[in-house]
Amino acid sequence: MNYSHHTLKDFTAKLFLKMGCPEDQSLLAAEVLIDADLKGIDSHGIARLPGYVRLWEKGRIVSNPNIEIVHETPSTAVIDGDSGLGLVVAPEAMKVAIEKAKTAGTGWVSVRNSNHYGTAGYHAMMAVENDMIGISMTNASPLVAPTFGAERLLGTNPMAVAIPALSQPPFLADFATTTVANGKLEINKRKGLPIPKGWAQDQHGNPSTDASCVEHGGALVPLGGTREFGSHKGYCLGSIVDIFSAVFSGANYGPWVPPFVSFLEPSSDPVGKGIGHFFGAMRIDAFRPAEEFKSEMDRWITRFRNSKPAKGEQQVLIPGDPERTTYEVRKYNGIPLLPAVVDSLATLSEKFDLEIPEPIR
Amino acid sequence: MNYSHHTLKDFTAKLFLKMGCPEDQSLLAAEVLIDADLKGIDSHGIARLPGYVRLWEKGRIVSNPNIEIVHETPSTAVIDGDSGLGLVVAPEAMKVAIEKAKTAGTGWVSVRNSNHYGTAGYHAMMAVENDMIGISMTNASPLVAPTFGAERLLGTNPMAVAIPALSQPPFLADFATTTVANGKLEINKRKGLPIPKGWAQDQHGNPSTDASCVEHGGALVPLGGTREFGSHKGYCLGSIVDIFSAVFSGANYGPWVPPFVSFLEPSSDPVGKGIGHFFGAMRIDAFRPAEEFKSEMDRWITRFRNSKPAKGEQQVLIPGDPERTTYEVRKYNGIPLLPAVVDSLATLSEKFDLEIPEPIR
Repeated sequence: MNYSHHTLKDFTAKLFLKMGCPEDQSLLAAEVLIDADLKGIDSHGIARLPGYVRLWEKGRIVSNPNIEIVHETPSTAVIDGDSGLGLVVAPEAMKVAIEKAKTAGTGWVSVRNSNHYGTAGYHAMMAVENDMIGISMTNASPLVAPTFGAERLLGTNPMAVAIPALSQPPFLADFATTTVANGKLEINKRKGLPIPKGWAQDQHGNPSTDASCVEHGGALVPLGGTREFGSHKGYCLGSIVDIFSAVFSGANYGPWVPPFVSFLEPSSDPVGKGIGHFFGAMRIDAFRPAEEFKSEMDRWITRFRNSKPAKGEQQVLIPGDPERTTYEVRKYNGIPLLPAVVDSLATLSEKFDLEIPEPIR
Repeated sequence: MNYSHHTLKDFTAKLFLKMGCPEDQSLLAAEVLIDADLKGIDSHGIARLPGYVRLWEKGRIVSNPNIEIVHETPSTAVIDGDSGLGLVVAPEAMKVAIEKAKTAGTGWVSVRNSNHYGTAGYHAMMAVENDMIGISMTNASPLVAPTFGAERLLGTNPMAVAIPALSQPPFLADFATTTVANGKLEINKRKGLPIPKGWAQDQHGNPSTDASCVEHGGALVPLGGTREFGSHKGYCLGSIVDIFSAVFSGANYGPWVPPFVSFLEPSSDPVGKGIGHFFGAMRIDAFRPAEEFKSEMDRWITRFRNSKPAKGEQQVLIPGDPERTTYEVRKYNGIPLLPAVVDSLATLSEKFDLEIPEPIR
């Protein structure tokens, strides 16, 4: 069943409004959420809506937050999100980074007291419209063991970098700093398949091929998979995201990061407030004229895209290509939702007295 | 044979002086180079000295460069290295980033017209002494194929991030954005061993276990190794380093980056000047009081280091731990040099009329 993005956005915005979010914030949060579905990042789209609602019901999300700058310099700021929806706190923080960049050349904002902010890429892309490079990262619920470790100390801690070009579409890298996201394990589990060695480990820290290993006390592993293939580098990346997002801002870090799922309680001994994000905006013409830079980006992109593919592959892709292709298709053909997601929307419709979204086909 | 770092530094500085480098720059370049040997990063230390000399003989390194800021804003600068030694251009650029951070909160410097700058970590660490976070990255000779590609379009493009703590030593991540560096293939080749699948590929883009595959038209691969294990993420990282270092500054990027080895000629159709670097300095107290931040970093570091190790492993390490351990040992016991490196130093002694360095034992 496919749903128009307009329908899903409208439903989501109305739901946030019923939760008590201000109208502009409801629209913004819906925009951020459905953008993920449009890009094919289904794990970060409307499928998460019930999760946000449950956190709000538990009092862990404040629907009308007082988002404020608590410290700043010409090129930096720290923002307290007041437990607001990450879907709102994040774009507000990115706006501050962009404003700082307008005068100081670059802007860097660390955020505390927030929660799940959707896709990293959405926020990074906000800079591109302003002829800036955008950077976005966030820490997340602990699911990842460091190299040589058996405990879950880090989240999948994604980062995104968006870079404008001239006639080519923007370069948009947006990725978790683990080998794979948890969703990939769930897909194999549903199919009854093992997972490749190097995706996750068991509770003793041994590489595992069991798709359920993370549920049974195991952990996801940093990008690289094992020490032999460079997992210490992925561990470095995840740590850097954690420190920039949370130690800079005064949010919870490492194993203290509160879980997204409402049935797991946050640490009773927190080291900070909520989860943390980090944003950057660099004005292109703080380095060289924007047209010149973007024209070189066209050459960079074209050279890579037209390079010789490996045997059996179609083409070298530019970061952002796959999501843009999906976006174009789903914008017109609609967003396919799994039956479980459709059911959850029906439940939410009832709870909030909203019309059930109608599929387009 | 072990050599005192004082002896090697003295020899290197005298050699650079004979090449026509100013005295302060000779000392600085020697300091950067031997710091790599002290940390056990032998591939980036005195073993490279003959390589720098050959580039100077070919006129591709200028010994007395006019390093200048060509563009700037309160938090950014672009520097032209005038083909100077990267070992000198890089710390000069990092100094500018640090000065910018003092007034604007952060400083970001992109550099063109430079060459090999030693280890990324040395430059990042300069910020730490100033209660700042340091960031350092550089592009490099094309040896790496993008995901799905068969051509060498990127360098090993390393990045480093240095973060101060209070009573704990600093966090220092310093890594190539590939699965492994070329040196690891050379080690296996010398031993007559194959390489694990996922370290490199052959000229058609197929994963290869042949330790000589890169010499025969193959390529190193981005961190992740293969698409299944996330190599597209390593490809994103390497690309970001390339773009920040070279498209921002007007240096050569991608396959146009001039090779470090003097027997390979640079592109006859360059897209910029020399190779590029990118540096960042973020003042801790532009975000929160430095003591507070550093005390939280102590907690972060302690929590990770004392976490449960995986079965069969001793301990979870903090980025920077292995290099610091080696540093402490080599500072007192000296730096072990391979016979081939000792021979190359003897040749350089003769060429520049310098005394041959004497081993300590």
